[in-house]
Amino acid sequence: MTSILIKNVWLERDTTDIFIEGNTIGKIGKNLDVQAQQTIDGSRKAAIPGLVNGHGHAAMTLYRGWGDDLPLEQWLYDRIWPREAKMTEDDVYWGVKLACLEMIKTGTTCANDMYAVFNATAQAVADMGLRMVAAPTIWDFFNEDNAEASKKQTLQHFRDAQKYGSRITFAAAPHAIYTVSAKLLQWSHDFANDNDLLIHLHLAESRTEHDNAVQQFGLSPVRYLHKLGLLSPRLILAHCVWLDDDEIKMLADHEVSVVHNPNSNLKLASGYRFKYREMKQAGITIGLGTDGCASSNNLDMIETMKTASLLQKAWRYDPTLFPAQEALDCATVNGAKMLRLHTGKIEPGRLADLCLIDLDTTAFTPNFDFVSNLVYAANGNYVDTVICDGRILMQHRQVAGEREILDRAADAAYQLTSRQ
Amino acid sequence: MTSILIKNVWLERDTTDIFIEGNTIGKIGKNLDVQAQQTIDGSRKAAIPGLVNGHGHAAMTLYRGWGDDLPLEQWLYDRIWPREAKMTEDDVYWGVKLACLEMIKTGTTCANDMYAVFNATAQAVADMGLRMVAAPTIWDFFNEDNAEASKKQTLQHFRDAQKYGSRITFAAAPHAIYTVSAKLLQWSHDFANDNDLLIHLHLAESRTEHDNAVQQFGLSPVRYLHKLGLLSPRLILAHCVWLDDDEIKMLADHEVSVVHNPNSNLKLASGYRFKYREMKQAGITIGLGTDGCASSNNLDMIETMKTASLLQKAWRYDPTLFPAQEALDCATVNGAKMLRLHTGKIEPGRLADLCLIDLDTTAFTPNFDFVSNLVYAANGNYVDTVICDGRILMQHRQVAGEREILDRAADAAYQLTSRQ
Repeated sequence: MTSILIKNVWLERDTTDIFIEGNTIGKIGKNLDVQAQQTIDGSRKAAIPGLVNGHGHAAMTLYRGWGDDLPLEQWLYDRIWPREAKMTEDDVYWGVKLACLEMIKTGTTCANDMYAVFNATAQAVADMGLRMVAAPTIWDFFNEDNAEASKKQTLQHFRDAQKYGSRITFAAAPHAIYTVSAKLLQWSHDFANDNDLLIHLHLAESRTEHDNAVQQFGLSPVRYLHKLGLLSPRLILAHCVWLDDDEIKMLADHEVSVVHNPNSNLKLASGYRFKYREMKQAGITIGLGTDGCASSNNLDMIETMKTASLLQKAWRYDPTLFPAQEALDCATVNGAKMLRLHTGKIEPGRLADLCLIDLDTTAFTPNFDFVSNLVYAANGNYVDTVICDGRILMQHRQVAGEREILDRAADAAYQLTSRQ
Repeated sequence: MTSILIKNVWLERDTTDIFIEGNTIGKIGKNLDVQAQQTIDGSRKAAIPGLVNGHGHAAMTLYRGWGDDLPLEQWLYDRIWPREAKMTEDDVYWGVKLACLEMIKTGTTCANDMYAVFNATAQAVADMGLRMVAAPTIWDFFNEDNAEASKKQTLQHFRDAQKYGSRITFAAAPHAIYTVSAKLLQWSHDFANDNDLLIHLHLAESRTEHDNAVQQFGLSPVRYLHKLGLLSPRLILAHCVWLDDDEIKMLADHEVSVVHNPNSNLKLASGYRFKYREMKQAGITIGLGTDGCASSNNLDMIETMKTASLLQKAWRYDPTLFPAQEALDCATVNGAKMLRLHTGKIEPGRLADLCLIDLDTTAFTPNFDFVSNLVYAANGNYVDTVICDGRILMQHRQVAGEREILDRAADAAYQLTSRQ
């Protein structure tokens, strides 16, 4: 069994050693008397749990900066979707590898991902050593032939998923209520129930989506899901920036989880009044996500923590809201909880997903409050070392194969966007 | 005369060479046939003008993370001001050196600064090689003895300022309308007029400030300044998040400049509805700033560009607002213009203040649109090289004396906050 000993690292409120055996955190304590295959000097570094990106579309790193500052419909219908229709498995493989490289470089060890192209996504994540809840998009655009094709493909991907190992978990991902019929939504729910899967769905992202639901279904988005019987503890909703208080109660009553994506919501002007306080008081598990790079342009979860915290303070006119520690909890233990993964905390018995942060830097000088500096002063580039599933994926900001990934992903992006 | 040749660097839309002679940009063009003392390989790097931080309090890096997530009054009156009263010149010197290190590391070459302790600030900036418009705070808290002391000190600092060289410009900085009497505000204005100085003032930062002005003076903040005859092209206002349309017109008519500090405004919950569109349409020169690290926790102007842009899109529900190029303009040429400095653009004859951005990175892969990637995907840590006034201050992210600055500044911060 492989083993790693991290010596003299700052953890929560003290300096300690962390011993990793196989893919699990073994012991934590001062001056551990253990033999390890690899030793890491943790002095002037702080350990944090590997960050959990609660919502994204990894392959969309290929569209970074391709169509910014455009109206939403023009961006999605004219720019993104026509190109996505032409993506190959190879494009997706290198796009996801780029996403993984970026996640490693910024301290994310696990992502909750939704993307139509499943096998290339899972293979790239498996190859890069990260953890992912990977869900191929289910959608029919209210057409029965599409629905049948989507079901068939989902079942095939579910069978395929077995071959990528324990770091890849399969989930069902009906895209949204404006792209998936009620029947296919219900099929997704039954499929997830039958196989004990999580369900990953976009919901209440924009005012347009909300108003169209009221017009088309006679119900707001959450009420519509409730009527269809889809609210359950296996449901993870991305966005939820257009909810009323009764909808929040309905989500809490059914133990639905919510992922807030502040940078995406701001950049696409979808909505900024995420009701963090009410959701937290109702007991909803709240995670944080970046969304895809076509929306929010990077996968930096530390930046995401800051935006989320500042946004709450700002729109509620209360600087005490969403303090730094809560932002870190959302990006670690809450994300792990909703994804049913035994990660998100550094304690014996949990999976060994963690990062070391470089304290020999301006952002951590002075260091009155490490978590405050992490959330408000730092960004993903302050991550020095990343360990996922007991394997070192980055040390001193060096990741194996980086040069090739940057080159191949850029090539894929340029070819993809110029392809006839 | 010193000279630097940057070979094959990406500049705006092409690859070119940049030749720097003394403190000035000499020539720009492909394959320049010149001899230089120093040559920099610019391949896979992009040149941008050195960023201009339009509003800050450099010494306050010492308070980073010391009192976050608190109510505003508790933070300012219980935490910050009692400690500031005990700061020594040595504290300030190391605090400002830390700020300069952070600015260099994140691509800022010039700051518009307000701080009570002048000489230590100016000396630290001079020693670090940056450019600063440095203004010692003028305030009297509506007490005549204080006013006399503040005037005397300001005149002394104005004489002192001559000795710090051409990179340090002196300005007048009446703190705010709630800390400076009308008489001292007018004295500041006359003093600035007599000596052709800029005036740096906080204005309309919070709703409380606005409402108190209406109650105390019978006028909103801008109208109060107008009545006192203080609106002029030499006036630079920080914040301005509580203005009505008539006030915006008054500022435009008098050619007053405005600096937007989005991260500070969000974090302190001061106000998020900065009327960028109206101010721009009115022709106001708008810059960007970080404010001090006690408010917004870092000095990263690239992060500031992103927050500013996303915030406009969000609160106006329009994703086309404040595109990336405008954010970059605010942080470069607009800042230079309001500070009356011949920087902010990379063109022959301008001062040689510029940065090289590392394109061999995830944030710039793919690189469909460099400015979009810079503003929306990158952050200050992507800056590789910084040149100010024709001198290389950072190369490959290495800054001379870094270790000592981090240690001495941290010591100063810990002593300062524990001093009886």
